[in-house]
Amino acid sequence: MKKIVTFGEVMMRLKPPGYAKFSQSDHLELTFGGGEANTAVSLAYFGMEAKHVTRFPDNLIGRSATQFLRRHWVNTSQVQYGGEEMGIYFLESGAVHRSSTVVYDRSHSAFANMLPDTFDWEEILKGADWFHWTGITPAISENTAASCLAAIKAANKLGVTVSADVTYRQNLWNYGKSPQEVLPALVAGSDVIIAGSSDLRLLMETEENLKFSHLAKLAMKTYPNIKKVADKDRESLNASHNTIRGKIWNGKEMLKTQVFDVTHIIDRVGTGDAYAAGLIYGLLHYPNDQDAINFAAAACALKHTVEGDANMVSVADVERLASGDTSGKIKR
Amino acid sequence: MKKIVTFGEVMMRLKPPGYAKFSQSDHLELTFGGGEANTAVSLAYFGMEAKHVTRFPDNLIGRSATQFLRRHWVNTSQVQYGGEEMGIYFLESGAVHRSSTVVYDRSHSAFANMLPDTFDWEEILKGADWFHWTGITPAISENTAASCLAAIKAANKLGVTVSADVTYRQNLWNYGKSPQEVLPALVAGSDVIIAGSSDLRLLMETEENLKFSHLAKLAMKTYPNIKKVADKDRESLNASHNTIRGKIWNGKEMLKTQVFDVTHIIDRVGTGDAYAAGLIYGLLHYPNDQDAINFAAAACALKHTVEGDANMVSVADVERLASGDTSGKIKR
Amino acid sequence: MKKIVTFGEVMMRLKPPGYAKFSQSDHLELTFGGGEANTAVSLAYFGMEAKHVTRFPDNLIGRSATQFLRRHWVNTSQVQYGGEEMGIYFLESGAVHRSSTVVYDRSHSAFANMLPDTFDWEEILKGADWFHWTGITPAISENTAASCLAAIKAANKLGVTVSADVTYRQNLWNYGKSPQEVLPALVAGSDVIIAGSSDLRLLMETEENLKFSHLAKLAMKTYPNIKKVADKDRESLNASHNTIRGKIWNGKEMLKTQVFDVTHIIDRVGTGDAYAAGLIYGLLHYPNDQDAINFAAAACALKHTVEGDANMVSVADVERLASGDTSGKIKR
Amino acid sequence: MKKIVTFGEVMMRLKPPGYAKFSQSDHLELTFGGGEANTAVSLAYFGMEAKHVTRFPDNLIGRSATQFLRRHWVNTSQVQYGGEEMGIYFLESGAVHRSSTVVYDRSHSAFANMLPDTFDWEEILKGADWFHWTGITPAISENTAASCLAAIKAANKLGVTVSADVTYRQNLWNYGKSPQEVLPALVAGSDVIIAGSSDLRLLMETEENLKFSHLAKLAMKTYPNIKKVADKDRESLNASHNTIRGKIWNGKEMLKTQVFDVTHIIDRVGTGDAYAAGLIYGLLHYPNDQDAINFAAAACALKHTVEGDANMVSVADVERLASGDTSGKIKR
Amino acid sequence: MKKIVTFGEVMMRLKPPGYAKFSQSDHLELTFGGGEANTAVSLAYFGMEAKHVTRFPDNLIGRSATQFLRRHWVNTSQVQYGGEEMGIYFLESGAVHRSSTVVYDRSHSAFANMLPDTFDWEEILKGADWFHWTGITPAISENTAASCLAAIKAANKLGVTVSADVTYRQNLWNYGKSPQEVLPALVAGSDVIIAGSSDLRLLMETEENLKFSHLAKLAMKTYPNIKKVADKDRESLNASHNTIRGKIWNGKEMLKTQVFDVTHIIDRVGTGDAYAAGLIYGLLHYPNDQDAINFAAAACALKHTVEGDANMVSVADVERLASGDTSGKIKR
Amino acid sequence: MKKIVTFGEVMMRLKPPGYAKFSQSDHLELTFGGGEANTAVSLAYFGMEAKHVTRFPDNLIGRSATQFLRRHWVNTSQVQYGGEEMGIYFLESGAVHRSSTVVYDRSHSAFANMLPDTFDWEEILKGADWFHWTGITPAISENTAASCLAAIKAANKLGVTVSADVTYRQNLWNYGKSPQEVLPALVAGSDVIIAGSSDLRLLMETEENLKFSHLAKLAMKTYPNIKKVADKDRESLNASHNTIRGKIWNGKEMLKTQVFDVTHIIDRVGTGDAYAAGLIYGLLHYPNDQDAINFAAAACALKHTVEGDANMVSVADVERLASGDTSGKIKR
Repeated sequence: MKKIVTFGEVMMRLKPPGYAKFSQSDHLELTFGGGEANTAVSLAYFGMEAKHVTRFPDNLIGRSATQFLRRHWVNTSQVQYGGEEMGIYFLESGAVHRSSTVVYDRSHSAFANMLPDTFDWEEILKGADWFHWTGITPAISENTAASCLAAIKAANKLGVTVSADVTYRQNLWNYGKSPQEVLPALVAGSDVIIAGSSDLRLLMETEENLKFSHLAKLAMKTYPNIKKVADKDRESLNASHNTIRGKIWNGKEMLKTQVFDVTHIIDRVGTGDAYAAGLIYGLLHYPNDQDAINFAAAACALKHTVEGDANMVSVADVERLASGDTSGKIKR
Repeated sequence: MKKIVTFGEVMMRLKPPGYAKFSQSDHLELTFGGGEANTAVSLAYFGMEAKHVTRFPDNLIGRSATQFLRRHWVNTSQVQYGGEEMGIYFLESGAVHRSSTVVYDRSHSAFANMLPDTFDWEEILKGADWFHWTGITPAISENTAASCLAAIKAANKLGVTVSADVTYRQNLWNYGKSPQEVLPALVAGSDVIIAGSSDLRLLMETEENLKFSHLAKLAMKTYPNIKKVADKDRESLNASHNTIRGKIWNGKEMLKTQVFDVTHIIDRVGTGDAYAAGLIYGLLHYPNDQDAINFAAAACALKHTVEGDANMVSVADVERLASGDTSGKIKR
Repeated sequence: MKKIVTFGEVMMRLKPPGYAKFSQSDHLELTFGGGEANTAVSLAYFGMEAKHVTRFPDNLIGRSATQFLRRHWVNTSQVQYGGEEMGIYFLESGAVHRSSTVVYDRSHSAFANMLPDTFDWEEILKGADWFHWTGITPAISENTAASCLAAIKAANKLGVTVSADVTYRQNLWNYGKSPQEVLPALVAGSDVIIAGSSDLRLLMETEENLKFSHLAKLAMKTYPNIKKVADKDRESLNASHNTIRGKIWNGKEMLKTQVFDVTHIIDRVGTGDAYAAGLIYGLLHYPNDQDAINFAAAACALKHTVEGDANMVSVADVERLASGDTSGKIKR
Repeated sequence: MKKIVTFGEVMMRLKPPGYAKFSQSDHLELTFGGGEANTAVSLAYFGMEAKHVTRFPDNLIGRSATQFLRRHWVNTSQVQYGGEEMGIYFLESGAVHRSSTVVYDRSHSAFANMLPDTFDWEEILKGADWFHWTGITPAISENTAASCLAAIKAANKLGVTVSADVTYRQNLWNYGKSPQEVLPALVAGSDVIIAGSSDLRLLMETEENLKFSHLAKLAMKTYPNIKKVADKDRESLNASHNTIRGKIWNGKEMLKTQVFDVTHIIDRVGTGDAYAAGLIYGLLHYPNDQDAINFAAAACALKHTVEGDANMVSVADVERLASGDTSGKIKR
Repeated sequence: MKKIVTFGEVMMRLKPPGYAKFSQSDHLELTFGGGEANTAVSLAYFGMEAKHVTRFPDNLIGRSATQFLRRHWVNTSQVQYGGEEMGIYFLESGAVHRSSTVVYDRSHSAFANMLPDTFDWEEILKGADWFHWTGITPAISENTAASCLAAIKAANKLGVTVSADVTYRQNLWNYGKSPQEVLPALVAGSDVIIAGSSDLRLLMETEENLKFSHLAKLAMKTYPNIKKVADKDRESLNASHNTIRGKIWNGKEMLKTQVFDVTHIIDRVGTGDAYAAGLIYGLLHYPNDQDAINFAAAACALKHTVEGDANMVSVADVERLASGDTSGKIKR
Repeated sequence: MKKIVTFGEVMMRLKPPGYAKFSQSDHLELTFGGGEANTAVSLAYFGMEAKHVTRFPDNLIGRSATQFLRRHWVNTSQVQYGGEEMGIYFLESGAVHRSSTVVYDRSHSAFANMLPDTFDWEEILKGADWFHWTGITPAISENTAASCLAAIKAANKLGVTVSADVTYRQNLWNYGKSPQEVLPALVAGSDVIIAGSSDLRLLMETEENLKFSHLAKLAMKTYPNIKKVADKDRESLNASHNTIRGKIWNGKEMLKTQVFDVTHIIDRVGTGDAYAAGLIYGLLHYPNDQDAINFAAAACALKHTVEGDANMVSVADVERLASGDTSGKIKR
């Protein structure tokens, strides 16, 4: 059983039922999510041992968050408690031309307020096969960025493969440093990155009109530790109908998957994290990169039909779709 | 901040959750709605001051109806209380080939039983920019028709713009008068009407095969106060998938909008009222009629994705769609 | 009012709300269903007198199952009580590429454990117009198969028309006999069968590549009591979008219906049973087979939009669709 | 199996969940109830054949009401359809010092608007053992009063025992006749009446300070057909805590039961109807009046713990309590 | 219609349904509350014009909070928007020996982060009859304390009566000042205070064993503007059963109410705020202090049976209880 | 951190919401429970490492059961998968005089059908401080009894303390052996037993009228390994109001606790398991038996207020009550 370690904030997710708005609703659905933890949950459902490292307030809300992760098979032995507030995000689910809307309440969370050296990363990563981080963690605070860098360095030292989902979110970078100051050191220690063209441009300050394969090559040149640059193409026909295609540059070839036509989206959140989980599983378990991104893109497509932040599907579910069975016939 | 006054019945809306039928369900979703109030709510969400004039029974149900309107930003200072029954409508939500079904229980409502002269319309309309009525109000009872006419006359006297959503519903006209006897006087005092071809034919008893633009011209000739005749084209592919296009005859040109493809309908009720609200907002805030109907049709399209009777979206939401962004991407 | 008798197991159906999974959910939707009872409920909603014969445990769960049938207009005067367990099925609802999943807990149900001769079939069928069974009943246990055969023989003796929905489900046949040993005697007593090509091949052990019309002719030759062989073609574009077309071989012609495009599936379960109910109603009430399968296929299409196992729609609902009105417009 | 026939209005009951108020709630619990139907449901749960006679609107709401009765074992073969509106009552559940509140919307119901001679009472009552009516039915409209009288006369003719729960509700008598004009003829045909002292005073216009036993004797003198006068003493400590004691004057003795201490009321509605059902069952099945009122009072006490209008408990449940076991221990 | 102005934070209240814990629950009940706003809502239900002054984040959550206040009749014309976070409190409802538990997330709320001089208090209070504040507001931040003082001074200047619910909560005072430094200036401008013995000792640093009447006298001497000192005695038999008695020292006499025995608590939160609202209403509308505290204590007792933070009962409801009717009988 | 191992069946628990009956309800609350697992969950909430050993079907239902245990902090590393059915119990919650009702569906569960030697008990118990079993496990099947005996023998060999909650349930012993044949060998290996007088009489076939202390002494003589015999006295005033007192015979003294007055029961199920957990925690962590049973009885009392089967409270919660604070005041 392969072992993964993930690191990042987990937020309480509060959402009115169905397509209702907060202004219409007197009760809310409660779940938890966060990019890296979503990836951990998905990998745990794939049968991997997934350990998520994070920090929660030491109260009944923080413990409920841990219990959510435990329920969904994640190893929570490295969760720390302290600070005062739980990160929260409020979600209204859109449809067709109406966008889903997210409001964050995370600026003063227990995670954001962590100290930089509370995690013993060498101890935590001992025996792990893979470490995964995303661009959200270094965007939250100086200390989370520092801790993320410490984790990557420890992983490099221990020979643990490192993957990154770069995903730059402009409105998160509020603590006084720019992503250009912070990200390069983190990316430099990563073996696999998931990054769209705009993320890659941000990392390398290149001209506007280079396309993905070009940028990927450039990234490998700039950050020689990187072995693979993956991404997915999403076409958003509307909030209820997207298409997804996976792609990867592995230093030799540019591989793409079939297009998955997600005609009836149930929950759009966390689909990128599901792609990351699929990619990690695929690269660890399949003999070639094409199979890996097929699995990743199929996993991503399936997530659109799973409620909540994380992709609670099995390897068999994903493989059936990756192998081309899009029929969705009842399993009895 | 522009001021609108609307007048009409508000009913309790009772609906089994999701797509369940009454025969399957042991609990119901409770909200309130009615054509003119739906328009008021939508305009209030657009930031206008919207005052709705109506009558409720003087009990906890009637007061809950007022509280619904207050919750959704409507000014309820002119709600009157009396009579015994709340108008109710029962709704089962259909999908694909199964129609939504509405059963009314409104014949003896507090609104239907109002006296003809209890509202001091000049006082109510003082300072207003716009008065809106629909063809449902004069269909309910002789007294509601008389009160509606009084309102229109007061508006005309005060120079308040009057709009009408004619919408003829045959099964409502049960109090002994025909629409042909009642509607002309009301329409004659209106500046803007929303009316389909069949509504227009009803108003003017023309031959069957005249088309909309012809009928609109005829309407302006018959009712010289009318400045604009608007409507929307709806194609009902099935109960879950409609398309919407707005159109208007402004005395000079026949303008049309793009077609909005509503591929996953969440709630079909009140979409016409959302169109009316969009049209009123548009005519009050945009420099030309094309922008106004673009806004109206986009508002109407968005309403199909909002639960309940009324369109609880912002001007920014509508403008994004009216300007052509149909992608429905997550707003963070 | 035509009278139908159906015979088969009814299970408790437990499903997380919406598209949630059991691992995510702390409450479940409770209903009841089973192939033959679903057909009975649908026919009861069509106005027929539908009597369902089955066996439930003699406790509050078994009685609730009876109450479910009564609620939905079924005559339960021939329900027997005994045994210990209620058959249960657990359902997770899929969407797009994610399949719905069913887990059964029915091996030791009150129905499976019935004795072979507890039902007085001649008494039960007296005055009935039709008896319907499915291939699930003889698959459950030796005694249910024996009882089903007794019912068919009694129906034949009394001149009651017999229909069968053959539907072979491999994973049910666990009591030591093969379908080839058991089904022929049951099919031999049937007047109308619904059977796909694979079902027909199973019944006659023919070569692989014969097509439906050929197989249907062969079935009539092998089982001379059969007058009609019906089936439906389903294209499963994905779990949320199927198309349905009905067809029938009546000994003279091969008739087909239009294709019904079910673009937004609400509940996929029981659609075959809805087809059977539509076919029975159609053959009993329409002058020709084309009308009958039009009604059957329209009924089947509508069931995809009805929550639960059974098709709770009216004859008027089905006839509107069968006659070509696919618009799903609101009924007020 | 003893057969009972009941006659009266059934209303849709709409209640916010728990102790919420309408002004706080966006969904409602849906059930149905009405004095006589509640008695029928309770007797059906006691194993009697209970037929309820009423009238519902001919729409999906009226049919759902019938389905409610069928679900709870009542024979609905004599339900008529017509008229427009379903009687509705809105309920807010109180606790401790806060009263439960009921708002009625029943003035124009299908039942109230029935014609006086649409029920063929001799046909309906043929073979019945008992007919039960309450003072609510003659209070609703002249026609319901006339129909009730016709039923009683038919019962008298056929030798069917007649019971009445007199319960005078002042605010219901709005159609122009006083209870003193209407009730005597109905009471005169009754064998068993349930009536409090104030009801009895109303029936006989006696002086204020006669006590129950005296009034009961007087009633038997005034209405010689009456064999038993029953009532219950309720002490309302607060809305969550009542005590109940049954009593009966049978012409010879004044019998009383123990006091049942209902310390945690779940649903206060319909407890009188449960008492009536217990009394009818008791008088039909026990050798003496003491056992009958013990059963009646225990049934009434149990109803306080059953959600909804009707007492869905078994004879065994009631007998255990009537025999003095108040422990409420878990039954496994 | 008397006019009240209140000032204080309103928090989102999130609570698992019934008695569930966060660790057990996948959905939450959503409402809003805060001491001063609860008092405003209660007074609005009593028919007073209640204006609540506060600050919310300028997003869909902040607007939903305003909509909650509007729904419950409060005037929100003086709500300001800005800052980032909504104050939140998480509530688990206890029973019997299990305490209810509250977790706060309010340290960085829009209210806490307000600037000291954004409210034009003279404008806001113009025409008001009463201003009410609590000891929570000055405990939150230096700026909220300053704004509260400004409000009191403006009220004093305009001759608006000022009441204070002192309620000292130790764990709130985290911004570097002690209550002894801050509260005296605020209390000095108040006409009526609600304060327990410990609150009074805090305000005057007296010896431990003085009793309430003594302390109240001392308070009036220390703060000569105070005319009345009120409090309530609560006996907490357990979390489900409390008793309440009101008391007041008015400078001349020590008045007490009867003891209200709240035997089945539904929602314990906000009962003190209901007492404050009752007291304000009572002092404004009754001729003597005894009637005022009778009303206050009855209002407080009733709140224990109302879900949510605020007391949504009418004057009639309270007067019935204050006059001694504790029976809680159904109102039809 | 002390380590406990428990062994026994975990069932899916299905319950209508509130006090509803299955015949009234269309949705159910889903949780999981079983005597020994309930004890494990409670001890896990007390901070102990609790490992539960059991067997579930290898499907999504079985995995959800494991996920429930993980969510509530239990170590599930020794759960085995196989067999077909999940044990289920259906629960209707009673109140006052109405009993809660349990219907079991567990005869063919994965646990009941386990093989006798699939668990490597010495491996499982290595390092544990305590092993706990109940009389339910040996009652289920011959193999579960054998496995339980193997576990006790391994515990004895490894010096792990063994406790037993004897609880004889007559209707479970259906596999052909009597408890007198099976239990003695299991009890003989136990150090601490919880057994009522009737359980003790069963174990020793003594005369009827010996009281608890006498029987406890006799048990220690008969089974010399037993060091303590504990029990609790429950008075069931009604289903909503019980009292609880703990007691223990430790070979020297008969100790009793105060009486805990549980006036408003929320969930009666699992209160004995909470007592067992409290006793185990108490005996492991307190210096004397009086403190231990104080803790046990307080834990038991608290469980009556916690929804679900298991006692999800903290040591601090229990200690506050055990130390005499019964006030249930809000914790902020």
